[in-house]
Amino acid sequence: MLRPPPGQGQGQGRAVGSVLKTPKGTRDHPPVQAALRERLLGSVVACFKRHGAAAIDTPVLELRETLMGKYGDNAKLIYELQDQGGEMLALRYDLTVPFARYLAMNKITNIKRYHVAKVYRRDNPATTRGRYREFYQCDFDIAGQFDPMLPDAECLKIVHEILSDLQLGDFLIKVNDRRILNGVLAVCGIPESKFITTCSTIDKLDKVPWEEVKNEMVGEKGLSPEAADRIGEYVQLHGGLDLIEQLLQDPKLSQNKLAKEGLGDMKLLFEYLTLFGITGKISFDLSLARGLDYYTGVIFEAVLLQQENDHVEDLVGIGSVAGGGRYDGLVGMFDPKGRKVPCVGVSIGIERIFSILEQRVKASGEKVRTTETQVLVATPQKRLLSARLKLISELWDAGIKAEMLYKKDPTLLKQLQYCENMGIPLAAIIGEQELSDGVVKLRDVATRVEVDIPREGLADEIRRRLEP
Amino acid sequence: MLRPPPGQGQGQGRAVGSVLKTPKGTRDHPPVQAALRERLLGSVVACFKRHGAAAIDTPVLELRETLMGKYGDNAKLIYELQDQGGEMLALRYDLTVPFARYLAMNKITNIKRYHVAKVYRRDNPATTRGRYREFYQCDFDIAGQFDPMLPDAECLKIVHEILSDLQLGDFLIKVNDRRILNGVLAVCGIPESKFITTCSTIDKLDKVPWEEVKNEMVGEKGLSPEAADRIGEYVQLHGGLDLIEQLLQDPKLSQNKLAKEGLGDMKLLFEYLTLFGITGKISFDLSLARGLDYYTGVIFEAVLLQQENDHVEDLVGIGSVAGGGRYDGLVGMFDPKGRKVPCVGVSIGIERIFSILEQRVKASGEKVRTTETQVLVATPQKRLLSARLKLISELWDAGIKAEMLYKKDPTLLKQLQYCENMGIPLAAIIGEQELSDGVVKLRDVATRVEVDIPREGLADEIRRRLEP
Repeated sequence: MLRPPPGQGQGQGRAVGSVLKTPKGTRDHPPVQAALRERLLGSVVACFKRHGAAAIDTPVLELRETLMGKYGDNAKLIYELQDQGGEMLALRYDLTVPFARYLAMNKITNIKRYHVAKVYRRDNPATTRGRYREFYQCDFDIAGQFDPMLPDAECLKIVHEILSDLQLGDFLIKVNDRRILNGVLAVCGIPESKFITTCSTIDKLDKVPWEEVKNEMVGEKGLSPEAADRIGEYVQLHGGLDLIEQLLQDPKLSQNKLAKEGLGDMKLLFEYLTLFGITGKISFDLSLARGLDYYTGVIFEAVLLQQENDHVEDLVGIGSVAGGGRYDGLVGMFDPKGRKVPCVGVSIGIERIFSILEQRVKASGEKVRTTETQVLVATPQKRLLSARLKLISELWDAGIKAEMLYKKDPTLLKQLQYCENMGIPLAAIIGEQELSDGVVKLRDVATRVEVDIPREGLADEIRRRLEP
Repeated sequence: MLRPPPGQGQGQGRAVGSVLKTPKGTRDHPPVQAALRERLLGSVVACFKRHGAAAIDTPVLELRETLMGKYGDNAKLIYELQDQGGEMLALRYDLTVPFARYLAMNKITNIKRYHVAKVYRRDNPATTRGRYREFYQCDFDIAGQFDPMLPDAECLKIVHEILSDLQLGDFLIKVNDRRILNGVLAVCGIPESKFITTCSTIDKLDKVPWEEVKNEMVGEKGLSPEAADRIGEYVQLHGGLDLIEQLLQDPKLSQNKLAKEGLGDMKLLFEYLTLFGITGKISFDLSLARGLDYYTGVIFEAVLLQQENDHVEDLVGIGSVAGGGRYDGLVGMFDPKGRKVPCVGVSIGIERIFSILEQRVKASGEKVRTTETQVLVATPQKRLLSARLKLISELWDAGIKAEMLYKKDPTLLKQLQYCENMGIPLAAIIGEQELSDGVVKLRDVATRVEVDIPREGLADEIRRRLEP
């Protein structure tokens, strides 16, 4: 099967042997990174479990048609598999569409689930800022018909807990509602056909000043300057309950059915968030639009704030680290009869957070342990390999995390150096004397203190010493 | 972009709406299956960590050329991605080749790592027997130049521990060495060009009687009946140290350099396995050949035995659940200068084991919990939603796994039923009386016993109650 030579890959090729690299926009996780990621994902999953979510898993591969028509323009970023006979397949783009497919396929109308897994996007990678073509998503979603805003409020509480737990510094969670946004556009005289494209311009307000946004609206999107100005009066607003009350009294907006519904729910949401004690980090922000088509109600996005010189004025957003919202129509797109299952969910942007943690660990000089070994089984003299093998076997069988060097006769120095390099806290040393006494010398690697322990009590003593 | 209609997928399609299915040979894991899998993988990973392995992760996508030329005939089972511009990509077929690529790329000559992740094979699925196109592999490998047979023995100890821990019933670990097998073929007069194809015939001895194997050797592979008989005398042998000693004295085999090396190492391996106390489940089996090209030394495979009517004679192999061996040449295939890194490793066949566990749980009627929720926050009267939200927020912030119903005014019966359905052991009930007394009624769902607990001590009391 001959193929044309690959375009992009070629430049990085070699004349001889294999090209030694991972695909563009992907990376290996060596042990230190894998350990950090385990720590990070552990913290996120702990939060999801704290909120009673069950895990599910779906395949990385989906039928191509399952993904098509769900991502708007972003469909071009979907990886497709070669037609090797059989079904047309693609790699999942996110975890939300497969979740909706799963619900419709199994006629599930009520579930709270989390899913931590890799997704794939043929995007332009920016790996230093944590943007990859293969990356993890951590999703928590609540599906089902419930009383308004209760699941939505819990999603925001989860974002608040995760970002607080990870101690990433100050953050802000922006909240809006697609119904309010659509209501604003309607009362500003924008035709419905221009809602989506106008929203994508509004979404830029967190990065560029209003004047530029207005220019784009008028120049590129064909709005009148007056309409743009009317929009500008709304979308530059952000605040809390006061703002919601003010807009509920707004002569124009209060006449729009959708906006009124959205504002009523936003008020309820803020009441619940007040009871959770987290409104201090929540901002009702009318410029928040979010890219994806499928949102139908509340939308939100969390950004980290970089505090410089303790001036609150200098807070600069360094990017979104979580986002989500309500999508009540997506499951219905998969159901043959169009039956809807209301859903709300949140996705944690784990790669950006991981980049931050990685840099922080590097800066702190912290030595990350990559293994959990509790004890190295060592011998001080030669010809004691059998003794080491017997002892380590006893420890493994007793559930102790133990290693030994794969050498017949290593020096004690080499063995102790291995402990220091790998951060192994204890060494169980067994020599001629210990063998005949029926004991093992247990050495604390840091303090170098050695104590003889009866062999049958060794596992318990190791456990006792390493209790947290 | 028009495409021809997919062949295989078509029959399962619908006239209207999306095809609601996962790709052929893949499956979703609903909460019960995800929970069982977490239990299973947890046990396997615990063993890998007990042996001091670090985690690594590599991408699901690899450059096509990284995978090519490593899997012999099985290369046709590799999933390839469409050429969408850029590099030619494929989905990984196993975790071993990416591991070797990782070692060569980073010039790592010494590591003990585990990797639990999905791999992809366009094989004929047999999902009832746990054979999928997307499935998990759990690999443990030791790379580095060490004293002979020490890492190899640890790999076998790991298989023994995992299969014992999982209580899958009786099992047998077959061991052989590629050098012994090649030596046998050489002394039986087989030309080296026929080694691999003859091996693949020998490998069938665990499923069909010798006569059939012989017929294939003579009829299909073109060996003389005499040569086949000579091979038959060897490959039907299995045993322990005695057999090794016997073959070391074998007039023909002892003259073959490779076989002698292999037998010497096999003897050493059995000495180590004796010290580990596991030879009872190890069989030196000259018919074990293993499919993959890259093995160079010790090879092994674990099979579960089904014991019928307590007759040891009736033991029937129900398939391989773990396998591995030594592959000293694979990393060198990636190194521009061909530098070798000796490696030995084991892969746990988690899908088959998972099928068995799933069936066993089904048969036992065990109700698998899919969440870890410790307490449901409940109210006995109406208009107490605020009290529930405040209390649950306190519990979450104290690290308690807590849920509430997403209803403003659910009945107490509904709330308690939810506890029973989901296996939630406790309910924290807060009503008018409790609010004014500053207490919470903590109910044991199983016994229905209720005790008033001061609100500030609730989290601690819940933790105390649920201590293992």
